[in-house]
Amino acid sequence: MKVFYSDIQMRHDPQMFLSSGAPQPSPEKPERATRLLDSAKKAGLDLEAPEDFGLAPIARVHTPEYIQFLSTIYPRWQRIPGAAPEVIPNIHPDRRDCAYPASAVGQAGYHQADTACPIGPQSWESIRWSANTATAAAIAVADDASEGPSWAYALCRPPGHHALKDLAGGFCFVNNAAVAAAELLASGAERVAIVDVDLHHGNGTQGVFYDRNDVLTVSIHADPVRFYPFFWGHADERGVGPGLGFNLNLPIPRGTADAEYMPVLEDAVARVEAFAPEAVVVALGLDGFEGDPFGGLSISTAGFGQIGARLSKLTLPTVLVQEGGYLCDELGLNLESFLDGFGNG
Amino acid sequence: MKVFYSDIQMRHDPQMFLSSGAPQPSPEKPERATRLLDSAKKAGLDLEAPEDFGLAPIARVHTPEYIQFLSTIYPRWQRIPGAAPEVIPNIHPDRRDCAYPASAVGQAGYHQADTACPIGPQSWESIRWSANTATAAAIAVADDASEGPSWAYALCRPPGHHALKDLAGGFCFVNNAAVAAAELLASGAERVAIVDVDLHHGNGTQGVFYDRNDVLTVSIHADPVRFYPFFWGHADERGVGPGLGFNLNLPIPRGTADAEYMPVLEDAVARVEAFAPEAVVVALGLDGFEGDPFGGLSISTAGFGQIGARLSKLTLPTVLVQEGGYLCDELGLNLESFLDGFGNG
Repeated sequence: MKVFYSDIQMRHDPQMFLSSGAPQPSPEKPERATRLLDSAKKAGLDLEAPEDFGLAPIARVHTPEYIQFLSTIYPRWQRIPGAAPEVIPNIHPDRRDCAYPASAVGQAGYHQADTACPIGPQSWESIRWSANTATAAAIAVADDASEGPSWAYALCRPPGHHALKDLAGGFCFVNNAAVAAAELLASGAERVAIVDVDLHHGNGTQGVFYDRNDVLTVSIHADPVRFYPFFWGHADERGVGPGLGFNLNLPIPRGTADAEYMPVLEDAVARVEAFAPEAVVVALGLDGFEGDPFGGLSISTAGFGQIGARLSKLTLPTVLVQEGGYLCDELGLNLESFLDGFGNG
Repeated sequence: MKVFYSDIQMRHDPQMFLSSGAPQPSPEKPERATRLLDSAKKAGLDLEAPEDFGLAPIARVHTPEYIQFLSTIYPRWQRIPGAAPEVIPNIHPDRRDCAYPASAVGQAGYHQADTACPIGPQSWESIRWSANTATAAAIAVADDASEGPSWAYALCRPPGHHALKDLAGGFCFVNNAAVAAAELLASGAERVAIVDVDLHHGNGTQGVFYDRNDVLTVSIHADPVRFYPFFWGHADERGVGPGLGFNLNLPIPRGTADAEYMPVLEDAVARVEAFAPEAVVVALGLDGFEGDPFGGLSISTAGFGQIGARLSKLTLPTVLVQEGGYLCDELGLNLESFLDGFGNG
């Protein structure tokens, strides 16, 4: 099996964000990618660099306004006298149906929901190649004609699951899991399920597919009542219009450990099976780890192996898309454990 | 005639905000109030402290959630480990119909649209008394039985016109002009017009009354296409539902001076006359001044006298509510000029 990744994804190097109003260094560091890559190789995966698919896979998921913003904002921002070195928003619309702002500051506030998605000089290239990585993995899975369900690991960095159609947030810009799901649909799948096991609710992925019934979105995450992303991720968010019943949120208490996590994963799997998808995307966050700097859940290294093994029992073509998981001694081990569990499950 | 003001309004002392993503000291300084008070006295107005009207006048305009947030957030924020000394938001919902967050950080993002409305230890008291000042001035105008149209000046600080029903922004928390208009309605007026001459669009005031036909909102301001508040203030925003046609935005180019400003004011006055209100609230920003630190328009000190004189020719009971206008040598002179023009117009 393969891990897809491009070195260009290392270039994005966000410096600052506000946490409870106070400036802090960003934990979404380039080193995350090298650590994860080493572990994917240790787990026996073969590295393949994605090709450049251009903007089409991104345009399936995001608005043209937003893609234009992401790809052009940095040099425009640099021309503002006294502006911060990174594009960081400081004013936000109360509704999305306002006039579209012409200025860089207005557009930053329109397209960036928080301060945790700063855009630097090389961010767009990394964002674009993170999406290429997701696309390549999805194509590999869709095209695989070998016996048994195929799978691939997309080492996406920056991550994507907090990105809505036209809104960055929480270290995310382009929604790589959504890009992968859209690619699977374009490759012929009728129904695709996304299972998000990141510590945080996949509010972006939910938002992208909220009114659709061809993509089931399921997310297990720390209860957002007092946790990022705060506004979304509750059990009563079930989809809208044709998408009603095609979104499942499974919020769990802070500190949940393996033994309590696995039955919740069972609920997620049962819903996926009831949807009868032809392919699955796993939004693979590793920040539910008991030692992750975010400290939200208490999943062990072995626990990630169990999660991987259970998801592999769906016996469906699967794209594993990297989401969160931050620097700690066990970050790589946790990925290795998941991949071993998935590959041998 | 009277100026209403309480010293308690000085206590709010915001320190920091982000401008184009970079930290800057707040220009909404307590000294603004003392300067304006001195000038109001020089213009011959008698100082009267407002009484405490409690929360009822504020509750006419703002949601209970928001009032509870403003009045309780500071001590809650202080309990967050590593939080900034002031309440400053860093994550915002993409829509208002999300679940209401329980945490201080989530509520800050829900109720503060930007970083320019930091809440410090004594902010709520100042906010509350700024609203008391607006209420007292409205009552004085409504109760005045003397010959000729009555008027009063509410030295509101912090200002209010960017505050929506449940959202602070742009140095504003409680919408004092809206509080004054609601008080005039409660005192028996059937129709009240608000004329906003601040440099910035009165997006909060517009939002509060956008679906109502008992309050006409008119705003003259620097074109928001590249200027705060960015998302609102365009000519095509005309109201909604019963309020359609009861909102008039008159955006003007950056750098507009007296000669070009006065015909636009004439359009505003004509619309007010067509509404046949029983009372008027002037949202009196002085930051359109040619020397104001915001540098948006080029109104002269004499120009403010002309604006005051023209508005007084409406010959209607009028509450003048202080909005923006920042520290520069002429800040007090500009108020004096306006009040002289209004009183003798």
